[in-house]
Amino acid sequence: MPTTIGTALLTDQYELTMLQGALASGAANRRAVFEVFARRLPGGRRYGVVAGTARVLDALEGFRFRDDDLEFLRAARIVDERTLAFLADYRFSGNVYGYREGEAFFPGSPIMVVEGTFAEAVLLETVILSIFNHDCAIAAAASRMVRAAGDRPLIEMGSRRTHESAAVAAARAAYLCGFSSTSNLMAGRLYGVPTAGTAAHAFVLLHDSEEEAFRAQLDSLGLGTTLLVDTYDVAKAVRTAVELAGADLGAVRIDSGDLAAAAVDVRKQLDGYGADHTKIVVTGDLDEFAIAALTAAPVDAYGVGTALSTGSGHPTASLVYKLVAREGPGGEMLPVAKRSVGKPSRGGRKWAYRRTSGGTAIGEIVTGAPIEGRDRPLLAELVREGEVVGREPLGAARERHRATLEELPLEACSLSPGDPAVPTIFN
Amino acid sequence: MPTTIGTALLTDQYELTMLQGALASGAANRRAVFEVFARRLPGGRRYGVVAGTARVLDALEGFRFRDDDLEFLRAARIVDERTLAFLADYRFSGNVYGYREGEAFFPGSPIMVVEGTFAEAVLLETVILSIFNHDCAIAAAASRMVRAAGDRPLIEMGSRRTHESAAVAAARAAYLCGFSSTSNLMAGRLYGVPTAGTAAHAFVLLHDSEEEAFRAQLDSLGLGTTLLVDTYDVAKAVRTAVELAGADLGAVRIDSGDLAAAAVDVRKQLDGYGADHTKIVVTGDLDEFAIAALTAAPVDAYGVGTALSTGSGHPTASLVYKLVAREGPGGEMLPVAKRSVGKPSRGGRKWAYRRTSGGTAIGEIVTGAPIEGRDRPLLAELVREGEVVGREPLGAARERHRATLEELPLEACSLSPGDPAVPTIFN
Repeated sequence: MPTTIGTALLTDQYELTMLQGALASGAANRRAVFEVFARRLPGGRRYGVVAGTARVLDALEGFRFRDDDLEFLRAARIVDERTLAFLADYRFSGNVYGYREGEAFFPGSPIMVVEGTFAEAVLLETVILSIFNHDCAIAAAASRMVRAAGDRPLIEMGSRRTHESAAVAAARAAYLCGFSSTSNLMAGRLYGVPTAGTAAHAFVLLHDSEEEAFRAQLDSLGLGTTLLVDTYDVAKAVRTAVELAGADLGAVRIDSGDLAAAAVDVRKQLDGYGADHTKIVVTGDLDEFAIAALTAAPVDAYGVGTALSTGSGHPTASLVYKLVAREGPGGEMLPVAKRSVGKPSRGGRKWAYRRTSGGTAIGEIVTGAPIEGRDRPLLAELVREGEVVGREPLGAARERHRATLEELPLEACSLSPGDPAVPTIFN
Repeated sequence: MPTTIGTALLTDQYELTMLQGALASGAANRRAVFEVFARRLPGGRRYGVVAGTARVLDALEGFRFRDDDLEFLRAARIVDERTLAFLADYRFSGNVYGYREGEAFFPGSPIMVVEGTFAEAVLLETVILSIFNHDCAIAAAASRMVRAAGDRPLIEMGSRRTHESAAVAAARAAYLCGFSSTSNLMAGRLYGVPTAGTAAHAFVLLHDSEEEAFRAQLDSLGLGTTLLVDTYDVAKAVRTAVELAGADLGAVRIDSGDLAAAAVDVRKQLDGYGADHTKIVVTGDLDEFAIAALTAAPVDAYGVGTALSTGSGHPTASLVYKLVAREGPGGEMLPVAKRSVGKPSRGGRKWAYRRTSGGTAIGEIVTGAPIEGRDRPLLAELVREGEVVGREPLGAARERHRATLEELPLEACSLSPGDPAVPTIFN
């Protein structure tokens, strides 16, 4: 989210002390390639979902050390004057390639590739990872919920369960993955996500009777509104609702109890009153498993809160930002990697392609050089010599995710832990 | 975090549509009391920790609907003109009481009490809950880690694993609970949290040899720096480090492998070189359990990332904001509560006190009226008629949490799930 104080201090101190060391050793200007990838998918998930790329581009454009940032760094003695001078003039001038938002990813997929000098690229590590690790975690959960819900719409309403700014990004990621709307007004304003919401229990409790509250809501918001019917007695509330609104009542919402049983009862009751167009919205600690369990219940829409905004058990995406190649003493690019046991870190700049067969994804091809052929290239140009060139509307990302879901093999639908639905093939 | 666009749209749409309905019904100006509390502590935790109060006060002060916010709401047809006019003039003019930051809380503790008209108080629900649910979740995890670490310092380094703004709040909450420092520079700038960090593997990989990288770091950052010794071979790196820095080397950091075994080996090696003042910092997927398991290992400091910034398995604190009393038709205040099965929601404004015996907390006393006596009152005045009066320095909150940990009974130390360490007694 845009702030008055820029994004440059949303950074771990060691990025700046490494810069200082590299400026002193002379290695700061060596060309370098960093890649963002996940060594594994959290919790046996079958696929990851790229989300946050547009926010990374915003952060990169806003990544400037202002006078008061520099004054803080000087007063706290975090880096020396030479480094402060470098930071004062800092503009990223390199190239960035990345997977498009909404695309699936798998272990080892290079979802972003950053090329520049070591100095300019290392500084971006923290903010790039913060954005991707959050947004991809939300997107992975959202995508599973969208699959579980089938044709039924999902409303994102988890803002109150997560940091106030994270809530805005979560609403965006949920919409990107197929949610219909969000309760979060800032997400509406900043990203154009459709917003939704009518009333909570407090509105009923504020009035002297449920009937009075319903009448006030219907008068003010119209017959198409959604009345919350579980403050006192559900059956009584549904009767009152239809008495006041007639068969044109938009929807009723049930937020507690056994949602499946309650939905069956309420559907019967509504149909009995002739209100067969009145929809039933259910909310209350839903996750992808609870949504799947409600498949047979007469539910028209789901509202999802906590589980969405906390990544349904996996609030971070395990993405890392690693130096994979850097300029050697002779000017040549050298692949580099930490010596790791059990961590698949591969040195060298990568390219990535999606292999399909009959429209179904069968391989995530990760190569050390560009290849020609029928496999779909996954890396798009996002930043060229410091200038952002890869923006796209959020709707395009949403449509891409819809198509991606159709392309994934059936195993991707499984909600139980297991292997990635598409194997990564390193060539 | 301060933003150019204010906090008023960090709000669920239904707060505004409820306002519209209440303005139409005439109930909007009824006096109301909302309370923030948790029905239970997540995951069998033994105590909760209040964190975020100061950020709530910031958000409350910044809660203004600006012209462009109103224009968005008008264009999106979210509320009517009468409601927009109310929002344009919105200033919270009520009173707020709350637990002080760093204080422990238990199921039912009213950690914040908001008094005002329904209209002015209902609008604050989402942003208040977002802040508390995030910050209290981080604080609960941080506090357990601080206890597990005993006298050893903890460095917060989880920024990259969570939303970029959440990271700043997480660093603040961790420091409040006893962490020594953070990697997050924005937390240093905004909140004065001490910052830390020296170098990552990328710095070693950038140079033509580990020795060259270490020399560059020592030359630039001084002998007191922390060298990262697990890029290639730990024993070789430690030898190189001491050869270059001598016995004055500040610290070495181990970020992978079996940390306990590695710490023992490295300690022996350092002592053998006479570098017995050189400290050992361990990092790498630590949580309170891993920290406790390292008690017997020769470790001098812990760096904690993912587990801190994601609440160590519980990324949200389950706090709710409920209408508990409102003005009746005759001007009297009436207690209200949703009819709930298994949800301990009690109507009526509450007061809260901590009962101790011999310096140990033995009861969380929640009452329907103020009481006199020896129990410590827990609600402090934070906002009086719209004006913030309850600010305090972060250091005071940190000291309070230290004292709170001493006051909690021994059961609070347990890392295993169980009942709250102090029972809540509703009087």
